[in-house]
Amino acid sequence: MAKQINGQLGSSEVHIKDAFWNRFTELVRETVIPYQWDALNDRIADAEPSYAIRNFRVAAGLEEQPYGGMVFQDSDVAKWLEAVGYSLASHPDAELERTADEVIDLIAMAQHENGYLNTYFTIKDPGKQWTNLYEAHELYCAGHMIEAAVAYYDATGKRKLLDVMCKFADYIDSLFGIEPGKMRGYDGHQEIELALVKLYQTTGEDRYLKLAQFFIDERGAEPNFLIEDIKQRDGLSLWTGRNMPIPKVEQLAYNQAHKPVREQDVAVGHSVRAVYMYTAMADLARLTGDMQLLEACQRLWNNMTRKQMYITGGIGSTHHGEAFSFDYDLPNDTVYAETCASIGLIFFAQRMLKLEAKSEYADIMERALFNNVVGSMSQDGKHYFYVNPLEVWPKASEKNPGRHHVKAERQKWFGCSCCPPNVARLLSSLNDYIYTVTAATNTIYTHLFIGSIAQFELDAGSVTLKQESELPWKGNVRFEFTEVPGATVTLALRIPSWCREKAVLRINGETADYKTENGYALVNRNWQQGDVVEWEPAMEAQLTAAHPEIRANAGKVAIERGPLVYCLEEIDNASPLAAVSLVTSSALAVNFDSQLLGGAIVIEAEGRLDEQGSWQEETPYRPYGLQQASLPVKLKAVPYYLWGNRQRGEMTVWIRA
Amino acid sequence: MAKQINGQLGSSEVHIKDAFWNRFTELVRETVIPYQWDALNDRIADAEPSYAIRNFRVAAGLEEQPYGGMVFQDSDVAKWLEAVGYSLASHPDAELERTADEVIDLIAMAQHENGYLNTYFTIKDPGKQWTNLYEAHELYCAGHMIEAAVAYYDATGKRKLLDVMCKFADYIDSLFGIEPGKMRGYDGHQEIELALVKLYQTTGEDRYLKLAQFFIDERGAEPNFLIEDIKQRDGLSLWTGRNMPIPKVEQLAYNQAHKPVREQDVAVGHSVRAVYMYTAMADLARLTGDMQLLEACQRLWNNMTRKQMYITGGIGSTHHGEAFSFDYDLPNDTVYAETCASIGLIFFAQRMLKLEAKSEYADIMERALFNNVVGSMSQDGKHYFYVNPLEVWPKASEKNPGRHHVKAERQKWFGCSCCPPNVARLLSSLNDYIYTVTAATNTIYTHLFIGSIAQFELDAGSVTLKQESELPWKGNVRFEFTEVPGATVTLALRIPSWCREKAVLRINGETADYKTENGYALVNRNWQQGDVVEWEPAMEAQLTAAHPEIRANAGKVAIERGPLVYCLEEIDNASPLAAVSLVTSSALAVNFDSQLLGGAIVIEAEGRLDEQGSWQEETPYRPYGLQQASLPVKLKAVPYYLWGNRQRGEMTVWIRA
Repeated sequence: MAKQINGQLGSSEVHIKDAFWNRFTELVRETVIPYQWDALNDRIADAEPSYAIRNFRVAAGLEEQPYGGMVFQDSDVAKWLEAVGYSLASHPDAELERTADEVIDLIAMAQHENGYLNTYFTIKDPGKQWTNLYEAHELYCAGHMIEAAVAYYDATGKRKLLDVMCKFADYIDSLFGIEPGKMRGYDGHQEIELALVKLYQTTGEDRYLKLAQFFIDERGAEPNFLIEDIKQRDGLSLWTGRNMPIPKVEQLAYNQAHKPVREQDVAVGHSVRAVYMYTAMADLARLTGDMQLLEACQRLWNNMTRKQMYITGGIGSTHHGEAFSFDYDLPNDTVYAETCASIGLIFFAQRMLKLEAKSEYADIMERALFNNVVGSMSQDGKHYFYVNPLEVWPKASEKNPGRHHVKAERQKWFGCSCCPPNVARLLSSLNDYIYTVTAATNTIYTHLFIGSIAQFELDAGSVTLKQESELPWKGNVRFEFTEVPGATVTLALRIPSWCREKAVLRINGETADYKTENGYALVNRNWQQGDVVEWEPAMEAQLTAAHPEIRANAGKVAIERGPLVYCLEEIDNASPLAAVSLVTSSALAVNFDSQLLGGAIVIEAEGRLDEQGSWQEETPYRPYGLQQASLPVKLKAVPYYLWGNRQRGEMTVWIRA
Repeated sequence: MAKQINGQLGSSEVHIKDAFWNRFTELVRETVIPYQWDALNDRIADAEPSYAIRNFRVAAGLEEQPYGGMVFQDSDVAKWLEAVGYSLASHPDAELERTADEVIDLIAMAQHENGYLNTYFTIKDPGKQWTNLYEAHELYCAGHMIEAAVAYYDATGKRKLLDVMCKFADYIDSLFGIEPGKMRGYDGHQEIELALVKLYQTTGEDRYLKLAQFFIDERGAEPNFLIEDIKQRDGLSLWTGRNMPIPKVEQLAYNQAHKPVREQDVAVGHSVRAVYMYTAMADLARLTGDMQLLEACQRLWNNMTRKQMYITGGIGSTHHGEAFSFDYDLPNDTVYAETCASIGLIFFAQRMLKLEAKSEYADIMERALFNNVVGSMSQDGKHYFYVNPLEVWPKASEKNPGRHHVKAERQKWFGCSCCPPNVARLLSSLNDYIYTVTAATNTIYTHLFIGSIAQFELDAGSVTLKQESELPWKGNVRFEFTEVPGATVTLALRIPSWCREKAVLRINGETADYKTENGYALVNRNWQQGDVVEWEPAMEAQLTAAHPEIRANAGKVAIERGPLVYCLEEIDNASPLAAVSLVTSSALAVNFDSQLLGGAIVIEAEGRLDEQGSWQEETPYRPYGLQQASLPVKLKAVPYYLWGNRQRGEMTVWIRA
């Protein structure tokens, strides 16, 4: 392999201890993981059954039942196991581990002699393996199970699932490749690529990295594999049972297979597929020194985050194909902004940070995390948004079919339940997103401000750093070196975009200057044990405008404070919310409301409410001159991530200015 | 039959002679009818073939070909013939009449011995007649052909098609009814009901009126006929070829068959079906004195026009099912506002005017006509909008699947080409919409201001009235009595809503007072030959606001002048149009632009353009405070009906205030 870009990253072990985030990680541990376990076992009343565990029991020969659920149902078990792995790493739990071990035994029993593992094809369509890469998610499911195997091995040291998945990966490696007799193919849904990189990193086996690279290299090459895949079965579709027209190459933009990945420069197609692929591309760029891949990642990152991203970190603006549409097309009401897509965006950002420490990646990671992702889960951990709208009119969600996909309330569980377990695995592995370290330069990059204890291995030696953070309510962050190597170490503190370059650094109580590089404040020192670094990026409530090309937000403002996007809810304000405007010259009042869902900062602003009393019900249109003066009104905005936790009603992020 | 509501209406014969409308009626005669004839014969290059005439040739046994086009393709021939009938009535044309006679010969040859007539079932599915009322549009096609027969007979006195359709109607009458052995059914798509009323009016045969009433009475009654119809073929669908789930009664709201029509009070479902049904209901209410039906019509009219109608007279806000969604849900960009639906709204308004002369009905009729309907056709008469949006971003129409149905340019012809021939038949019969007369009270109601010569038969005797109108550019209307009965006659002049109750009446040059009743100025006089009435409703450019519950228009204004709604087009203004706002305190400048598409009044206003220069391409969101002052800009609005005739670009009716 070529030399890695950004050298060898240092290792780190991070444990979160943070007032804000522990609530979520505990929720995941105490509620989400057990709840999802029940869901996987079809024990949630009134929710669509999952069949996911049952499928494994059937495939293992323990039960006779038809296959149930989506073709990719196995991946829900995998994502759950992956979350369990992360959770056990920070919080050992013998009973949970025993349950997971039983699931792993089941998975192992469902594996074929040759290594093959997929309950759909085992139960429902034996003999049809690898005949529908376009639709059947076979490698996608394998990828998720590989991720689970790696996470579980890392947490417990138990190799069973890892061995199962290495065997499967080896089997896949024997089937796919450029060598004669092998399939020059790839999956319709990217995922295995990033998983194989993880498997390579855990096992050190080059062949997994090469297989990942093969899948990335083949994608979009001519002749187009997916088209051939569809042709060989005359377009017969798994979903409809009918022969569909053979797509044209450009239609494979849905799968990002319309052109070789190195030539792609605009984020297109199914957004989750896209970001999973970009994540693997960034991994491969770093590990193989492939500059073309790096440049493709940069172009795709730029297009996606600068022209196709909602202020909440949501991506994918249309539910048709759960996809990107085009630059600046970011409707707030017919939005998609799938939870999984933002999670994938966070994966991609993390990998880009490993390639090059630029605060922009961390800014977006934080934006997606604090808003779209955390907001997707209810405060009880049992209800989820799949679609994360920026504007909701509950009646329209119900009665206008073009908005049926936009739910006004979080749902219990989904037939296609990719999002809830994805949230669980991200939140339970959040410790991996806080820092990156460059061992050779002895630099510790702090990307997220999350209270934690972290131990780093640098070339200079070990460093233990305790971070305390008051985010998202205050910008105050405090670092204490509790173990130092007796050599110079650089602490690189992210200057978050929201502080607008106002951030105060204090070292052992003394205000200190700092130089900045790529959006980080660099503090280079021979740190002593007990040294304290205080970092205070300014956190002020502020109004944000959107680019004029984003037509949906013309004449509107959003309220932000620190990493949080705010929104208006009907319960705190008026109905219709569209009748409300914000007086942009007025001061924004920031108050901690201890009664609001466990306590949160709310922001109040002066607003105007369009006069409505003079309107008669029977008048749809009337002279503008009849409109009477708008009324002053106090607007109350709450953090976006908390919306919809009190009562059904309208919500909007963008407010008329 | 019970006594008619509103007594016996007087008869009238009206010929249009109007600078504005003759352009359209000539376009229909000289371009649209020949063009559509070519379309029906599959002679339009690059347009989807119609197969409509070919189907009749095949059904007549003159050719062997498979059936082509939609299941309701026959109705396009019918609508074309109906338009031809109206056209011949005002402009005899021997060659056109010969062509029509040949088509009628063909239709007669396609008729079965028993009277049955439908090319789909004759060619493609013989033996399956009347087995799929829910989907197959059999009675719908019959209805359109009945309308054609009546129009052609009225114009030419030729009975051939009328006889064909009476025979078919008699056959239908023998099959449907409450008598034992007959089907207690009705069509999935209303249309025959209003057609049978016309057939009754032309033939005087009560059985046609009774059959219409039967269809109306049965609709939505329990047990639900459409559900039984679907059940008897196990849900097998004509459209998909698959067995679909049996719908629940409430899903038949799509067909307005979810409850008896007399109990309906909210406009729901497929909007064209709805207004065709309401039209027949109003006819029946009048002709049978059925007060329950009248009240249902009033309720449905009120709901539809006050809560579910666009300012352009468009109805149906979602393309899912081409349907109404719910009160105040009137998105401008994901709109439907089908041309046919507004035409049906005009039918309904006309029938309501026959029931009760209230200016509100005529106001809406005029609004739909001058905006949605006329705007649906290109200035060359060869391109049509099916969907009539109030806001267009061409790139979104192309690249966001949720807006694919909203075309930025008029299309040549549609696979489902209901709209173009519907426009043709409306415009060529526009003379029927100008007046109603109440013979017994000797009152002539002037609903539309369209230059014309009209002869009325009143109880008092004959009246000939010449109307000259400068609409839509000026409010000046002039009436001259060229034949008078020598008795008192009331001229009721509509006080259009757009004049805001400012209208000047002059009789023989002298300003005169008038009393108003239901929105009409009543002038009761023993008119002398040569008497001149000048009627000048004030026509000023004005700004209009929408009801606060219509969220899509919050903070926005529309420009209207007289009957015309105006819009901004990118070609005359800025891009994005969303960056533009209108200074509501500024004066609106009204100018006649002789260069604009044959001449039209344009309206200029002071506007502001959001400052864009300081935005960098890579910044999607930034502090509101960085936004620099907006720039003054001159806005130029053109009549909505003219939009999209110059170049592809953005368009908006509602402008930020």
